[in-house]
Amino acid sequence: MLKPNMHYAELRDSYLFARIGAKIKDYQKEHPEARLYRLGIGDVTRPLCPAVIAALHEAVDDQGSFDRFHGYMPECGAPFLREAIASHYAARGVALSADEVFVSGGASDELGDITDLFAHPCRALMTDPTYPAYMDASVMAGREVTRLPAGEENGFLPLPDESAEADLIYLCSPNNPTGAVYDRERLKIWVDYANRRGAVILFDAAYEAFIEDSTLPHSIFEIEGARSCAIEICSLSKTAGFTGTRLGYTVIPRELVRDGMCLRDMWVRNRTTKTNGISYILQKGGAAVFTEEGQRQIFDNIRVYRENARVLTETFDRLGAWYIGGKNAPYVWVKCPAGMDSWSFFDLLLREIGVIGTPGEGFGASGEGYFRFSTFGSPEDTREAASRLERLLKQYY
Amino acid sequence: MLKPNMHYAELRDSYLFARIGAKIKDYQKEHPEARLYRLGIGDVTRPLCPAVIAALHEAVDDQGSFDRFHGYMPECGAPFLREAIASHYAARGVALSADEVFVSGGASDELGDITDLFAHPCRALMTDPTYPAYMDASVMAGREVTRLPAGEENGFLPLPDESAEADLIYLCSPNNPTGAVYDRERLKIWVDYANRRGAVILFDAAYEAFIEDSTLPHSIFEIEGARSCAIEICSLSKTAGFTGTRLGYTVIPRELVRDGMCLRDMWVRNRTTKTNGISYILQKGGAAVFTEEGQRQIFDNIRVYRENARVLTETFDRLGAWYIGGKNAPYVWVKCPAGMDSWSFFDLLLREIGVIGTPGEGFGASGEGYFRFSTFGSPEDTREAASRLERLLKQYY
Repeated sequence: MLKPNMHYAELRDSYLFARIGAKIKDYQKEHPEARLYRLGIGDVTRPLCPAVIAALHEAVDDQGSFDRFHGYMPECGAPFLREAIASHYAARGVALSADEVFVSGGASDELGDITDLFAHPCRALMTDPTYPAYMDASVMAGREVTRLPAGEENGFLPLPDESAEADLIYLCSPNNPTGAVYDRERLKIWVDYANRRGAVILFDAAYEAFIEDSTLPHSIFEIEGARSCAIEICSLSKTAGFTGTRLGYTVIPRELVRDGMCLRDMWVRNRTTKTNGISYILQKGGAAVFTEEGQRQIFDNIRVYRENARVLTETFDRLGAWYIGGKNAPYVWVKCPAGMDSWSFFDLLLREIGVIGTPGEGFGASGEGYFRFSTFGSPEDTREAASRLERLLKQYY
Repeated sequence: MLKPNMHYAELRDSYLFARIGAKIKDYQKEHPEARLYRLGIGDVTRPLCPAVIAALHEAVDDQGSFDRFHGYMPECGAPFLREAIASHYAARGVALSADEVFVSGGASDELGDITDLFAHPCRALMTDPTYPAYMDASVMAGREVTRLPAGEENGFLPLPDESAEADLIYLCSPNNPTGAVYDRERLKIWVDYANRRGAVILFDAAYEAFIEDSTLPHSIFEIEGARSCAIEICSLSKTAGFTGTRLGYTVIPRELVRDGMCLRDMWVRNRTTKTNGISYILQKGGAAVFTEEGQRQIFDNIRVYRENARVLTETFDRLGAWYIGGKNAPYVWVKCPAGMDSWSFFDLLLREIGVIGTPGEGFGASGEGYFRFSTFGSPEDTREAASRLERLLKQYY
């Protein structure tokens, strides 16, 4: 008799966004005419930039041509894209070999797959609040999970607790959901801690393109010592609007060795066994992001989202609300007014002003009492939502 | 200290196609002028059909438009594609609900991911010879592997051995590497065996589009009882030339329940945690395969590969060589002449006539003494290779 993976039975039943979806559906049934302002889920709204569209069309034409048709791609990524990504890091002062760069179908997919490199019974450490998929993937693998509480006292940027036993450390900076960003000094403390323990940091850099402050690190490999303790997982989803197009990349340095096994070499073996590479078409589109023209165009989009963030943070400044994020990050993490819990705040905003955000409690117990606003909506909706928030909330803060 | 997954250390060092690649490289260094005829790796050579190309271009334009832009796709697949696939099965007499169909990034990727549904210490059964990735993925998960020898005595279509303990059964029909195809009666024996034991069959149907004999099953779900014991993994790679474009699909029926856990529901949870869906662009291209026009066009390509198969099988008929496949399958599996082992035969063909195939030994011990020819090459190369084979081999058979 085949035994299923019974760890799936330990997963919490309901998923944050499913619960939000159900609440919205109920509300729309009662108020079919209501206009909603969605600052909830972190999906982008602006189309792919022209340089990417042109490269995708060209690649599609290649796939329709006898002479230029591409069959199986190299499993770890097309050399043209691995090299473009390595050059992108080099321009930022991080030296990588192109064969330490792996092309992926996106950061979520990679976060799901990559933990196959680690023995199952290991201790995973993640912050609280955190992106729910880290937790669920760890539960599915039967890992023991420790949550490190984040809060106002540490600016939602917790540092390692020397008493906590951790083998696998999830860090996300700029953070989802809080928008908090580790500076070099604090990230160095994590790197040193991981090296001392022989732990491995899975560094989720999906939001790095939103960093404006030049003193903040975009990559963990800007920190000395990271090459022997970190894997960086990145994505074009937020950088270049690829949420529905799909493409990401992962960096595993050769110095990352545990028990004599080189994790980069293990990942090559994993990819050559468990994939047949990433779509040629998508890789050509992705390579266009790293051209001069592509970089200029993606930042035209990012600037729109940054302007949304400015509209929201200025609103919360005027309200006198406590918040972080919105600077160097596409999320604004706001303290709910008047001691309100985050689901009550969700209900209030939905019912009174048709604004949708994400309750902090959905990201972990330490998120209770906080609320996430995404800046990926349209400028018009964001401005309207901000003015509605200001009108409603001035009585609360 | 993070422990790596030490099962990776149990993997065999060299990979079949890497060894072949090294041999070819050496040969080309010695004979830089030599023209080679590649009937080795199973990659397609014909471009995507016009209906798919048009759909891909249209989807790229959508991704460049504010009004038609698609962000995150549903994790289990776009409804338009899940429904198109369910209708494709319905036309063949297999009733499926669209939500039993999952869109994937390709069959290899799915074969790698899906075994997360099963407890790690389970017993995997696969035929010998077999597609190497089944074996390697099982070793990576620390599974105990039993090989079921296939040979001329059973037409390379082994039936279950009642004494073998198996939880997870890999079947591939039409088979890679042998091209042998299970008929309904023999597949029913496997389904009954799996149901009796509570085992689960992973049915790899990647080559089903090559079946011409209308009495042979394209899907395991044409067999009574399969809905309670089988997962079918399929791909557009060989059906529609998507090896470098990437798209596949998987069917998990609701009746597949073990220890009270519905594997279809577990897979929904896996996909929603560990992926953010498959590219909108690729799904639109994939949907075009299932239109009337798309079906007509993909079979124009498949007919070319079938004609290659005919050229090869007629050559082996004239030589009096023992072979299977090439009918209802894109591989021809030939017995090496004069008791030659399969790597010696590889060397002979490379050195004497510049023809590249795949040594049967690379697929398992029972493949020793046999050789795989792929029919995915160009018609010109296949005809030239066949006439060279005939001239060389008539002295051997």
